[in-house]
Amino acid sequence: MGRNESIPAPAVRRLSLYLRQLEAFRDSNLHTVSSKQLGQALNITDAQVRKDLAYFGQFGQPGIGYGVDELIAKLRHILGTDQTWRVLLAGAGNLGRALLSYRGFQSKGFEVVAVFDNDPSLQGQPIGEDGPVVQSIEQLVSVVQKENIRLALLAVPAAVAQSVTDGMIGAGIKGILNFAPVSLLVPGDVTVANVDLAVHLEQLSFSIGSSGL
Amino acid sequence: MGRNESIPAPAVRRLSLYLRQLEAFRDSNLHTVSSKQLGQALNITDAQVRKDLAYFGQFGQPGIGYGVDELIAKLRHILGTDQTWRVLLAGAGNLGRALLSYRGFQSKGFEVVAVFDNDPSLQGQPIGEDGPVVQSIEQLVSVVQKENIRLALLAVPAAVAQSVTDGMIGAGIKGILNFAPVSLLVPGDVTVANVDLAVHLEQLSFSIGSSGL
Repeated sequence: MGRNESIPAPAVRRLSLYLRQLEAFRDSNLHTVSSKQLGQALNITDAQVRKDLAYFGQFGQPGIGYGVDELIAKLRHILGTDQTWRVLLAGAGNLGRALLSYRGFQSKGFEVVAVFDNDPSLQGQPIGEDGPVVQSIEQLVSVVQKENIRLALLAVPAAVAQSVTDGMIGAGIKGILNFAPVSLLVPGDVTVANVDLAVHLEQLSFSIGSSGL
Repeated sequence: MGRNESIPAPAVRRLSLYLRQLEAFRDSNLHTVSSKQLGQALNITDAQVRKDLAYFGQFGQPGIGYGVDELIAKLRHILGTDQTWRVLLAGAGNLGRALLSYRGFQSKGFEVVAVFDNDPSLQGQPIGEDGPVVQSIEQLVSVVQKENIRLALLAVPAAVAQSVTDGMIGAGIKGILNFAPVSLLVPGDVTVANVDLAVHLEQLSFSIGSSGL
């Protein structure tokens, strides 16, 4: 993973939070913010904000702060979302359809350009009103290579998640957003982000406690 | 939030990871594990494992380790998932349907017992084969109070997310798993967990870098 090896993963995760908050500031017509304001909005100390950003260069001016538009542009560049990423979707069931219609993706630079499902009744038809045509999983390798796709959304049933993953990696996929409730085995040069919804619910259940029941 | 105030949120998040890994150990017929084994499987130091667990009591035996089944039961009790939580779903679109069919929930102690949507064409019909009947959002308050529901999955469009949230909180909801790409404003006694899928994709895009494009 080259350039990123020395930067702690939590710092990179916070970049996404900073970016989200800066976009909210921009939408409120704020043009300059201090590390203190940025931190306060996110419950993070201003020292942590400055330290995280310092991994990536020199931003802002002491006593003045950060230019909101400028820092947004720089964070997008660091995160790689100042370009459009072409993404594939494996699995065209309810979850896959929900992901395709999720507005958050396109506005952040992610475009689903190919959809695969091994249900023949779905194949050959577009998903949604003007979505991509569903293709069979057998076509995945050639499409990934032709379209040079590197990122995948995995929304297939748990039972086939690993075999679909193996196929995608063989085709050249390097990053997988995994919605199947299983741990995927992948080589070291492939990154998986797991969206385990039950973990979120456990955290909520803990914070509520059992007092209300 | 009473009992939980002094425990760092990252420690609580790791409890979910420990639980997930212990379930995997159990499925591999491992009956006893050390903090080192548990930590290694998750890239966490054994000192951190012991420190996290120590917030909640005394577990395991020095030199022997933890009984896998016993620690699973204790973590579920701490997280509050040794009981079944009745959960409501607001929004019966593609994402809502996907959440209803998500197998990870039920096995972790979460049961969706009520579904609401303000689309009249969906109301009065069951979701899926034997899912709950969709009700109008106007009925939410009375159902939440009658069924004593405390947790909600929010899968409505961003534009109505805050107003639906206000209604749910007025009805007594204390924890919200939010899928809408907006920041919800909630009172201090309500917990929100945001599932921001674009954040996950940004992290993947960062880790892949732009070298492949």
